[in-house]
Amino acid sequence: MNFENEMQSRVDAINQLLKCYLPEQEGLQKTVLEAMSYSVDVGGKRLRPMFMQETYRMFGGTDSIVEPFMAAMEMIHTYSLVHDDLPAMDNDMYRRGKLTTHAVYGEAMGILTGDALLNCAFETVAKAFDMAMQREQETEDKTRACEVYRRIMRAYRTLAVRAGIFGMIGGQVVDVESDAKDAKPISREKLDFIYELKTGALLEASMEIGAILAGASEEELAVISEIASKVGLAFQIQDDILDVTSTLEVLGKPIGSDEKNNKSTYVTFEGLDKSRADVKRLSEEAVSQLDGLGRECTFLRELILFLIHRIK
Amino acid sequence: MNFENEMQSRVDAINQLLKCYLPEQEGLQKTVLEAMSYSVDVGGKRLRPMFMQETYRMFGGTDSIVEPFMAAMEMIHTYSLVHDDLPAMDNDMYRRGKLTTHAVYGEAMGILTGDALLNCAFETVAKAFDMAMQREQETEDKTRACEVYRRIMRAYRTLAVRAGIFGMIGGQVVDVESDAKDAKPISREKLDFIYELKTGALLEASMEIGAILAGASEEELAVISEIASKVGLAFQIQDDILDVTSTLEVLGKPIGSDEKNNKSTYVTFEGLDKSRADVKRLSEEAVSQLDGLGRECTFLRELILFLIHRIK
Repeated sequence: MNFENEMQSRVDAINQLLKCYLPEQEGLQKTVLEAMSYSVDVGGKRLRPMFMQETYRMFGGTDSIVEPFMAAMEMIHTYSLVHDDLPAMDNDMYRRGKLTTHAVYGEAMGILTGDALLNCAFETVAKAFDMAMQREQETEDKTRACEVYRRIMRAYRTLAVRAGIFGMIGGQVVDVESDAKDAKPISREKLDFIYELKTGALLEASMEIGAILAGASEEELAVISEIASKVGLAFQIQDDILDVTSTLEVLGKPIGSDEKNNKSTYVTFEGLDKSRADVKRLSEEAVSQLDGLGRECTFLRELILFLIHRIK
Repeated sequence: MNFENEMQSRVDAINQLLKCYLPEQEGLQKTVLEAMSYSVDVGGKRLRPMFMQETYRMFGGTDSIVEPFMAAMEMIHTYSLVHDDLPAMDNDMYRRGKLTTHAVYGEAMGILTGDALLNCAFETVAKAFDMAMQREQETEDKTRACEVYRRIMRAYRTLAVRAGIFGMIGGQVVDVESDAKDAKPISREKLDFIYELKTGALLEASMEIGAILAGASEEELAVISEIASKVGLAFQIQDDILDVTSTLEVLGKPIGSDEKNNKSTYVTFEGLDKSRADVKRLSEEAVSQLDGLGRECTFLRELILFLIHRIK
């Protein structure tokens, strides 16, 4: 199977998994349940759960305990998009060619759908705890049970912290403030902060959670964080490059939108050539560190290279 | 010490605790950190953490492990108010005589502050896990450690579920839909649903979490859920009664606002006399069930009666 087919089969499996973890669409609160499902369907590449699962597998993980975390991660990513698109934020009516959540369900429901997805992510993590408690009852091995509980609790903390004010939300706050009409031109410090937190934090958390749940060592975990950080930054720079160089048909969204919005990006600060060179350097470093871990990681390796060389 | 003094000293202690668990106001994302603290300060009576703590104590709990949950509960309650007040929702500029969060910080920051508080609640719960892990390391008693982990995980699930689509958010969704300009008059079924979920769910969760963390039995936990459900409903009906019978000065917000907003309440359906009788019946039942548990609960008992007889 070639890489793109393999990737598609993973995306399909993740979509299936998301369906299982999203609540049934019934009851008086049906609208928000529909809107949650709609929002998750609009979102796209399932990169974060994919990175989580591949990192988990790389460190020998074989259990279904990673699945609630994969679903939770995608719900958090989705909620952030739903709230980003709101009229008071980016005021976007379309995402990936489909109407955004608030465009379909109205602004109030857009806010509540985001809230519901964020909350549901943490409800979903509770299912990993339930699995572990079930396991404890079955085996009666308290030492092993404690070890599993600790892993899950640590994975949980990683998810919560990386999604919060010192993670994704923190980056989003600075981004919103920098975008304000009366804001000063963004400083390089702030741009780095936004890239690291707004886009980087969840990707890092995804790989870290995979490693934590599989029982990677502290040293391995540190390397995984570095790899994820480089991949996240390379991915973001590539996004900025594509905004300048791609075409509308390929990208599926207006090109040059950053320039039109007077938005400073990595390319504005560093120029196109340096930006391309940095993407190359970051991804080569990430892949070389990955190889250095000495684990089977063919798909993860290809996934990183694919993201960097993508044209949309 | 009389009851009101005792209550005030508990409110002070909870405010102190909230300060400890809210993040320091520094870094590039300072605005949202300030806004989180501002929002928590505006919110008021700290009833939910108080109910949690008292239930915990009633079942013999003495550990600080309940504290992160108390803080998390108040953060969730606060985020729900911040989002409720947004222009796309109730569009309220004042709460308890102070400007609402979006009125001070703008709409985008109002959305993000709510998100940050909800997320921070779950970050805060992670601190209870950390405490328990620390304890496991110190004692090396794996059986006891497993027991504590299970309690915390169950308390965590209770928090997440009761705050979510089958709890508070679910109630809020139905409330928003019923408030829409083109909505049909609300049915009794929907009103009950909203009362049970929007206002009841977090109060129930508060008492349940207190009981779970202290190791109450399943039977005791079931009684606690019933008590909390009755207290929550009585509290909400009392709110509706006050909206009709109180004065502006006493209540601190416009009276008759429900009628002006064409909002059907318990009083609309049942009339004032029946509503008053129901409050009395519900609170008497709750107190009698509480007494039936045979635990020391003087303050909790008085707290329930106080809430029912309050005039604002």
